[in-house]
Amino acid sequence: MQLSGIFPPIVTPFTTDDELDERALRENARRWMRTRLAGIVTLGTNGESAYVDEDEADRIVAIVREEVPRQKLLIVGTGRDSTRATIAATQRAAACGADAVLVRAPSFFKSQMNAGAFVRHYRAVADASPVPVLLYNFPAGFGVDIPGAAIEELASHSNIAGIKQSGGDLGKIADDVAMARALSKPFFVICGAAPILHAAILSGAVGGILAVACVVPDLCVELYDLARAGRHDEARELQQQLTPLAKSVTSAFGVPALKAALDLVGYTGGAPRSPLAPAPAETVATLRGQLHALGIVATA
Amino acid sequence: MQLSGIFPPIVTPFTTDDELDERALRENARRWMRTRLAGIVTLGTNGESAYVDEDEADRIVAIVREEVPRQKLLIVGTGRDSTRATIAATQRAAACGADAVLVRAPSFFKSQMNAGAFVRHYRAVADASPVPVLLYNFPAGFGVDIPGAAIEELASHSNIAGIKQSGGDLGKIADDVAMARALSKPFFVICGAAPILHAAILSGAVGGILAVACVVPDLCVELYDLARAGRHDEARELQQQLTPLAKSVTSAFGVPALKAALDLVGYTGGAPRSPLAPAPAETVATLRGQLHALGIVATA
Amino acid sequence: MQLSGIFPPIVTPFTTDDELDERALRENARRWMRTRLAGIVTLGTNGESAYVDEDEADRIVAIVREEVPRQKLLIVGTGRDSTRATIAATQRAAACGADAVLVRAPSFFKSQMNAGAFVRHYRAVADASPVPVLLYNFPAGFGVDIPGAAIEELASHSNIAGIKQSGGDLGKIADDVAMARALSKPFFVICGAAPILHAAILSGAVGGILAVACVVPDLCVELYDLARAGRHDEARELQQQLTPLAKSVTSAFGVPALKAALDLVGYTGGAPRSPLAPAPAETVATLRGQLHALGIVATA
Amino acid sequence: MQLSGIFPPIVTPFTTDDELDERALRENARRWMRTRLAGIVTLGTNGESAYVDEDEADRIVAIVREEVPRQKLLIVGTGRDSTRATIAATQRAAACGADAVLVRAPSFFKSQMNAGAFVRHYRAVADASPVPVLLYNFPAGFGVDIPGAAIEELASHSNIAGIKQSGGDLGKIADDVAMARALSKPFFVICGAAPILHAAILSGAVGGILAVACVVPDLCVELYDLARAGRHDEARELQQQLTPLAKSVTSAFGVPALKAALDLVGYTGGAPRSPLAPAPAETVATLRGQLHALGIVATA
Repeated sequence: MQLSGIFPPIVTPFTTDDELDERALRENARRWMRTRLAGIVTLGTNGESAYVDEDEADRIVAIVREEVPRQKLLIVGTGRDSTRATIAATQRAAACGADAVLVRAPSFFKSQMNAGAFVRHYRAVADASPVPVLLYNFPAGFGVDIPGAAIEELASHSNIAGIKQSGGDLGKIADDVAMARALSKPFFVICGAAPILHAAILSGAVGGILAVACVVPDLCVELYDLARAGRHDEARELQQQLTPLAKSVTSAFGVPALKAALDLVGYTGGAPRSPLAPAPAETVATLRGQLHALGIVATA
Repeated sequence: MQLSGIFPPIVTPFTTDDELDERALRENARRWMRTRLAGIVTLGTNGESAYVDEDEADRIVAIVREEVPRQKLLIVGTGRDSTRATIAATQRAAACGADAVLVRAPSFFKSQMNAGAFVRHYRAVADASPVPVLLYNFPAGFGVDIPGAAIEELASHSNIAGIKQSGGDLGKIADDVAMARALSKPFFVICGAAPILHAAILSGAVGGILAVACVVPDLCVELYDLARAGRHDEARELQQQLTPLAKSVTSAFGVPALKAALDLVGYTGGAPRSPLAPAPAETVATLRGQLHALGIVATA
Repeated sequence: MQLSGIFPPIVTPFTTDDELDERALRENARRWMRTRLAGIVTLGTNGESAYVDEDEADRIVAIVREEVPRQKLLIVGTGRDSTRATIAATQRAAACGADAVLVRAPSFFKSQMNAGAFVRHYRAVADASPVPVLLYNFPAGFGVDIPGAAIEELASHSNIAGIKQSGGDLGKIADDVAMARALSKPFFVICGAAPILHAAILSGAVGGILAVACVVPDLCVELYDLARAGRHDEARELQQQLTPLAKSVTSAFGVPALKAALDLVGYTGGAPRSPLAPAPAETVATLRGQLHALGIVATA
Repeated sequence: MQLSGIFPPIVTPFTTDDELDERALRENARRWMRTRLAGIVTLGTNGESAYVDEDEADRIVAIVREEVPRQKLLIVGTGRDSTRATIAATQRAAACGADAVLVRAPSFFKSQMNAGAFVRHYRAVADASPVPVLLYNFPAGFGVDIPGAAIEELASHSNIAGIKQSGGDLGKIADDVAMARALSKPFFVICGAAPILHAAILSGAVGGILAVACVVPDLCVELYDLARAGRHDEARELQQQLTPLAKSVTSAFGVPALKAALDLVGYTGGAPRSPLAPAPAETVATLRGQLHALGIVATA
């Protein structure tokens, strides 16, 4: 597997009676696949995977698989708190057509989640997975931090293909890149925080899984291309323009805002599941303003 | 429902091939019910509910229900991250015979879990639940803290019967007790941290859900009785004796140690599910020593 | 030294041109000493000692010393970030008449402040101090936490007389009490969080250093006496009444509110030094209401 | 004032009897000034300013001033917890010849240190300072975080020249750079974390104040020059080489390691003041290895 480029961690749309909206999911996916995005990440944090049951998860993977052409990648979030459930979800995702799985750090029993626990978990998952496994570290989101030593130990596993580092800590990305250079196999480092995408690419990250790429895929790909091409002045300029919207749909206002922003640009976002609540009007107004500043006229 | 006394948040034993050990579960439950414990809490944090699938959960409730006599209470942990899944689990638990449900604070999307989200979540669950609902707050464990104002708003709901406050913050317990006094309905405050049980009872808590009560149920009930009877010198003495073991099976060494301690006193603890690992030998030695200090001869 | 009872960690009043208000300081101290308070703590956190220079500190100690009768105790906060400066401040305070010193945990270079650093610091201070030393732990305030093992190691020092545990963690107080029982010398455990005073006394604390005791000294002493006398129902009642005001002048609104509350009851509080700002009108209104609920008519 | 380039936040050497070692300070300074460093920062965090008294501070500034040529900059750390003391220290530093002052965020009474407090503090300091003021934000070190809105409000002050952002959060640096572009005056953004220097320069930072620049000044300047020249492949390479040592002398092992590393390369580091302790032998061995990897033969 070769990993590079920009991936949207897509949302899961629900109908007004809170069921999976299969039609909207498919249409969204189809539309994303008409852009230059490198594939799709489904059932990640932004896909409200924590709120989706196992049956829904399988249907989501199957539907999105039909829309992701073979030359692009379908990456499926399959992390659960137990190793056992993670393996089961991983094997089902692979059977449904996933090209790779993104496995969030297990985070229940936080005080017990030390280096040994992470190594044990990820090794067992990688051993049992039919497809390559990506680690997923997001300390601010999950409340645990995979230690560098554990990442290094796991990176040499033949079925562990890389890591998504979220949260905006460029140092972690740079550390992983430096560590990967000494390996005799590829280990792809992926940026999970749009506000540092430019710097992450410069530091050796191969791509990004970015919520804001759901909303403005082409601008994200453009930023990626500028950074890869060494056109750093233009990249810095575009990075500065993208950052406010990128924050709004993540750290500032979360998934409700991501879904609202999608509604504004013609995708179907819709309401999140409870206990999340739809973005309030003033957040929507902020999003509308940020899209306008990017030259995008909201369609809703 | 009248709520008082000491409850053990029981562990879930697994067989050597990592399946639910129904026989051990039943035998453990039967033995606990021969003590003066007020009932059983199953599928709580210590029951590794985060690692148990929905089918297993149903079987656990059904088995334990058969062992809990009607004059005691069966409380079932049914909290999930989404309101929807929590309601489903709650209704299934009630159908399986739960007397009440203990619903942990939803904690995914931490930055979005504000007072409004907690009120929305718990109200919907309480509206849909056939049995009384207990809130469950454990900031150090879950990474979110239900604000006092949200607790106050929820406490007046006719189907919300109380709260379990874990983590050892006596102030939160005292605040909830003071708040509850102004209500026209009961709102039971339950201590979830054994090291402050004596003080919590003194401050108005009606009981405790305590991991250490799985291991030494009679001593916990004795401490409870002393505190209730105003025999505070004896209570303080016993509290000081219990605290080291209480910490070992929770904050210090977690569920693996709780299971190991159960093995030492003749219950079946066994190995936890991965990514947890069995307690190492030095932890077991510590537990053995702490049991010895309490006058208990380890049987294993 | 025998240590027991309730102490107010007194504020430092400033004139309108931000100089030490010596006259107000003296009048406040004189008035506190007409109550049943066991003495005075000066230059603690609430005394804005972080904002007071060394010359002012000496004058404060000298003035307050004149107002504290010999049968009561004058305890002076002398903690600084370096051991060297702490020793110098301690020796000056002793020369000015301090009966004991309260030495906050050093907290600069947080990641280096391990057990070894605390032991090194406090040992050197205790060796050099002409008067008994009290440790002062306040994790939420200082950002560091003196480990129990370090406290235990220090408690046997002949010139370390006890510890003030602030922040409301009853478990730490109970742990220190239990540890102290095994010593061949006294080690006094003092509660620094008024909302848990009752429980702390029950758990073996010998007294309290409480911001709210500046405002309502008699009520705090009454609560202390009820708890010591085993009149726990009355104590719990009074505790519940005191807690809201106690929180307002500490965790909720801080030193500005403590000073405003003092102005309301006829002491001189006045404005804190910048970057603190005086309590806003709505905080003052809250304080006025809380005093009223305690049967106290604000005089300002 | 024009601000750019690499500055070392120099250590304060002490004699074996724990007094200021004026001779070593002067020799160190003189030697640094023979490199291509853009000046010196004295009395910063790494200068143990928290452990240095006001008289020593004045002597340090005077001595270093004599060694910093006029075409380079002497920046002096003058932040204290109170506004009043910060102003006094600032005016004394200016009188002693400081070209600018670096004012750390006030951090006592953490819960009161909101945007209003920071604005109040820094405005008063900037109004009273004879020389330009640099803000200094270091959340992990000081336990408080100056909000972006407060930085923006302060950045337009005519005597506030910029900010040092420490802690490795590239997003904060990028935000400040983007904000500064809209101002009608310069506002210099300085990187305080060597592991992200390359990315910070790329993102618009004008320079770095870096502990590791005390140890390997020429390599840091070389990295800075490569980044400014757009030679990003070489810069990334050098960045990766520098990062391990940079971490050792900051987040990993702190000021004791910084001083030990200086001893290894022929400067005088010496022992830190208590409660810090000298770096243990295994840390020194690590440093020696990291210097060796950079092609530097330790001289001690």
